[in-house]
Amino acid sequence: MRLEVNNQGKFAYNILLEKDFSLLKGTLDELSDEKTKICIVTDTNVKRLYCEEVLGIFEGRKVFSFVFEAGEESKNLDTVRKLYKFLIENEFDRKDILLALGGGVVGDLCGYAAATYLRGIDFIQIPTTLLAQVDSSIGGKTGVDFEGYKNMVGAFYLPKAVYINLSTLKTLSEREYSSGMAELIKHGLIKDKTYYEDIISNKEKIKNRDLQIMEEMVYRSDLIKKGVVERDFKENGERVLLNFGHTLGHAIEKYFKFELSHGASVALGMLCAADISVERNMLFPEEYEKLKKLLSFFGLPVNLRIEDKDEVLKFTRNDKKVESGSLKFILLDGIGKAVIDRSVSSEDMKKALRSIKVE
Amino acid sequence: MRLEVNNQGKFAYNILLEKDFSLLKGTLDELSDEKTKICIVTDTNVKRLYCEEVLGIFEGRKVFSFVFEAGEESKNLDTVRKLYKFLIENEFDRKDILLALGGGVVGDLCGYAAATYLRGIDFIQIPTTLLAQVDSSIGGKTGVDFEGYKNMVGAFYLPKAVYINLSTLKTLSEREYSSGMAELIKHGLIKDKTYYEDIISNKEKIKNRDLQIMEEMVYRSDLIKKGVVERDFKENGERVLLNFGHTLGHAIEKYFKFELSHGASVALGMLCAADISVERNMLFPEEYEKLKKLLSFFGLPVNLRIEDKDEVLKFTRNDKKVESGSLKFILLDGIGKAVIDRSVSSEDMKKALRSIKVE
Repeated sequence: MRLEVNNQGKFAYNILLEKDFSLLKGTLDELSDEKTKICIVTDTNVKRLYCEEVLGIFEGRKVFSFVFEAGEESKNLDTVRKLYKFLIENEFDRKDILLALGGGVVGDLCGYAAATYLRGIDFIQIPTTLLAQVDSSIGGKTGVDFEGYKNMVGAFYLPKAVYINLSTLKTLSEREYSSGMAELIKHGLIKDKTYYEDIISNKEKIKNRDLQIMEEMVYRSDLIKKGVVERDFKENGERVLLNFGHTLGHAIEKYFKFELSHGASVALGMLCAADISVERNMLFPEEYEKLKKLLSFFGLPVNLRIEDKDEVLKFTRNDKKVESGSLKFILLDGIGKAVIDRSVSSEDMKKALRSIKVE
Repeated sequence: MRLEVNNQGKFAYNILLEKDFSLLKGTLDELSDEKTKICIVTDTNVKRLYCEEVLGIFEGRKVFSFVFEAGEESKNLDTVRKLYKFLIENEFDRKDILLALGGGVVGDLCGYAAATYLRGIDFIQIPTTLLAQVDSSIGGKTGVDFEGYKNMVGAFYLPKAVYINLSTLKTLSEREYSSGMAELIKHGLIKDKTYYEDIISNKEKIKNRDLQIMEEMVYRSDLIKKGVVERDFKENGERVLLNFGHTLGHAIEKYFKFELSHGASVALGMLCAADISVERNMLFPEEYEKLKKLLSFFGLPVNLRIEDKDEVLKFTRNDKKVESGSLKFILLDGIGKAVIDRSVSSEDMKKALRSIKVE
């Protein structure tokens, strides 16, 4: 399957959904010639699984690989500097291309290096985690962490293509797969009630990683995300809705020093936001319970022991969605409809954090 | 005077040419409200001359200043990191604004930080050197040096306004003023014979820094540069013509470890490129001599002792204008008309370097 993404009303790139890497060479051939150098950027985990296969595809071409230690701890400017150095040493110029082969960390970091090396060179996203396939690889956000702040340094920069090989879902750990599911569910919650309900009716197949159903689910998630991004690339309006569950999610993630997965933190953040929505009579209590059950079904946490709630709140202050001091909190006005709310107070958030406490 | 700059056919920002800072507050007021934080980014030299005055203009507003050591040596990722930290500590968010007060180093570095902090915040260019007023502040190129390579890391990112106070020309050293003159002359050479000749007829007044004539000259230079940039923002075509004199100029600058000013290096680079143009019967020898005299009149070097010409050539190899191995060299097809040439060999460049040897 193929999804066209526009930017400012003009065609920008394709998202390809495949079940292997067989069309990757053709995708690259359309964007380059045999003189173009290729650098596969990946991490130690993904290298073990897919690097050889992808390198093999480009046999006969000038292909290099840059591998860094897997993990969020590598997503920083030091790793970016090492990549710049590697590219300089191998004389990469403006016509050459980077391939981000991996999850969100690889895609964000490689995309940021592509955005800034020689003021921008081409890159292709090859997301190998569910999270990256439905979220981070779509939409042009690139960046790295800085001094403990997530994605503090970055750029809006579009890939030339996003190539999704759905078979990579089979090699994900339970933890990683669950983490991606949180974002799929989020897309339904904020934009598309039918999609949300289809996730529920197909939950067994989804859990079993049935590639037929996952092709459909990833496609529909990407369709929602790309629509939002096309209408608001620079996050001046609608795009902030994608932040549903993320204000407290990011803060929880940080409070636990990234021991929880991103999706696990977002699941808890979504429950908090849903709890506030229920408090304001925007969501039925039964809908909250249904969401809780669904998240739990996919192995996501729905309860948590947080000793120091003020510490969590402190972490929401440097959120990029703070604007001139006021926080843009996302609530649900019914399933399938997210809204921006500027009136959510620290007290509201604290109360919501209490709602996810371990019974 | 005011010059509108478009990007992709739409209004992007204004260049204001003034003789003091009196309209700066109004310019900022149009782009922000009283909640917006302002950070003046400047270097130790410019701080001494103008920082207090500019800070005074924004009295009553939330205004901060970040000062770094003057000089090209500061134009690196370490200084950018310090600026990120300063912005985080003072809780700058996406709606806040940076003011680049200074020459090219300040503008390039501040612009790059603005492009990448929180994936992009607003900034205004306030160029205080002639070079920055006619060149680096116009056109959206931002960046820093990396491992000895000039502008190796950067982004295309537009300011919200360029505010030129021509009176700052009065406080420039001879060396800095000459350096800017090389770029003015370049603009005439590559695009506008009449402008080039007007520089020659007004050379005494220009040398005396007569602000009336300089207003006209800076305006016409900016008009040429912004036209080129509007037609080719990402340097896929015409924009590379602005690189006239820069391929060998940058290499010479690097060979002498940045002891020569940028303009001095470019002046020598332009003479080399003019020499190759004469060799190819694209330029009359008299035109070459006339250019030599003009550069010399403005205190720019026209002869140089280079012991190791191969070393200079080596430095041209990592030029960003190298594309898939072939160098885009800019030649003159008569005064006022620059052309791209891909056939200039190392031998041609070596011969041209010999033409500027000390007699």
